[in-house]
Amino acid sequence: MLPSARFAALGLALPTPPKAVAAYIPACRTGNLLYVSGQLPFDSGKLLATGPVPSAVTVDAAKAAARQCGLNALAIIADTLSAGGGGGLQGLDRVARVVRLGVFVCSDAGFIQQPQVANGASELMEQVFGEAGRHARAAVGSIALPLGATVEVEVLVEVTG
Amino acid sequence: MLPSARFAALGLALPTPPKAVAAYIPACRTGNLLYVSGQLPFDSGKLLATGPVPSAVTVDAAKAAARQCGLNALAIIADTLSAGGGGGLQGLDRVARVVRLGVFVCSDAGFIQQPQVANGASELMEQVFGEAGRHARAAVGSIALPLGATVEVEVLVEVTG
Amino acid sequence: MLPSARFAALGLALPTPPKAVAAYIPACRTGNLLYVSGQLPFDSGKLLATGPVPSAVTVDAAKAAARQCGLNALAIIADTLSAGGGGGLQGLDRVARVVRLGVFVCSDAGFIQQPQVANGASELMEQVFGEAGRHARAAVGSIALPLGATVEVEVLVEVTG
Repeated sequence: MLPSARFAALGLALPTPPKAVAAYIPACRTGNLLYVSGQLPFDSGKLLATGPVPSAVTVDAAKAAARQCGLNALAIIADTLSAGGGGGLQGLDRVARVVRLGVFVCSDAGFIQQPQVANGASELMEQVFGEAGRHARAAVGSIALPLGATVEVEVLVEVTG
Repeated sequence: MLPSARFAALGLALPTPPKAVAAYIPACRTGNLLYVSGQLPFDSGKLLATGPVPSAVTVDAAKAAARQCGLNALAIIADTLSAGGGGGLQGLDRVARVVRLGVFVCSDAGFIQQPQVANGASELMEQVFGEAGRHARAAVGSIALPLGATVEVEVLVEVTG
Repeated sequence: MLPSARFAALGLALPTPPKAVAAYIPACRTGNLLYVSGQLPFDSGKLLATGPVPSAVTVDAAKAAARQCGLNALAIIADTLSAGGGGGLQGLDRVARVVRLGVFVCSDAGFIQQPQVANGASELMEQVFGEAGRHARAAVGSIALPLGATVEVEVLVEVTG
């Protein structure tokens, strides 16, 4: 099944691709590699979760936020790779594989479940891209993230064509 | 206008390329990708800013420090890519595009303006390389950075030839 | 001398390659680049060091932990690149060069010796791969890491063939 079909079968909809602020861009391609900028858990213009885990946000809510970061990355990928740049799902079908996720989790000192949080984004990639969605990953804690977000996820994918 | 000319027109001068300490190198090339090691805001051998934002350093001072990190990265790029390795500005003209910036900002808990700080480096790249200077970026907070620096910036560029 | 011979001459043994938890994989290849997931300092199933430097772990112990992270990355590289996937040392001989290390050190606020800690991994790479083991690096502090580990190291290598 193509990633675009898997995505639709999951009952998911692509969010509006978040715009980058100021002097950087949502994604940058070099050769067959597409680097997606660090994504925050924006949902309809609002952050799904802010503040550190676990004092301000539960592990489950942070995992859901990580998934939202992943969705926003997919929206940018689809928008960048679709023929007309219109954000069509078909852009996802040009992903040869997901290569790497970098996941930063706003953490209290002593919080150690960053992997469980990061799985929110990782599992989404596998659901959408299947075996090609399995990736290398670095998940770490951060004392503070942009706009107070609980999670930030950057994504590297290999592109075909 | 070539990047070397833009750079000069900005009234900028390349710093002496910082040497890496110990068992790593300032930059490493694979294929057409040049990975520049994380740069600190050294200016004439001294750090422009140390300690967290905002308790020890203002956002504006941290942004200036991020720009200095970027300048040091450019010095390494120029040195690595110039014909004789002499650090000539012409090395900058072999940058096909800036691909990714990783920006770590030493932050107090609750500080959320890492993007504004990171813009110091991002805007420099756009000023020097124009459209080719626009890049993907991940900007996050860090509890502590090497030598107490307020900012660390790593840079990935695509190289021609 | 081949990396596999250097490795043996150092009196080192490859650990069992750590398995990735859940929805990501130990390493992912794209073109000639092999991205190894962030490694923790597991030694025979137990973490060599947990908690921040310096309040819970000395710089020397953290450096040893960083070296163990590096060893685990080498085990994954050997396993991924050996013909039969059997984890033979010969897999190391297919590394054309070590390109980048990302090192996260669990740090108390005010700790500034992340480079000394990271050298544990960097020096291992140079010992095993010689000149080809010298790499670009970003070393930063982190408030908290997975499972409470003191260090996490991710590795990017260029592969031949």
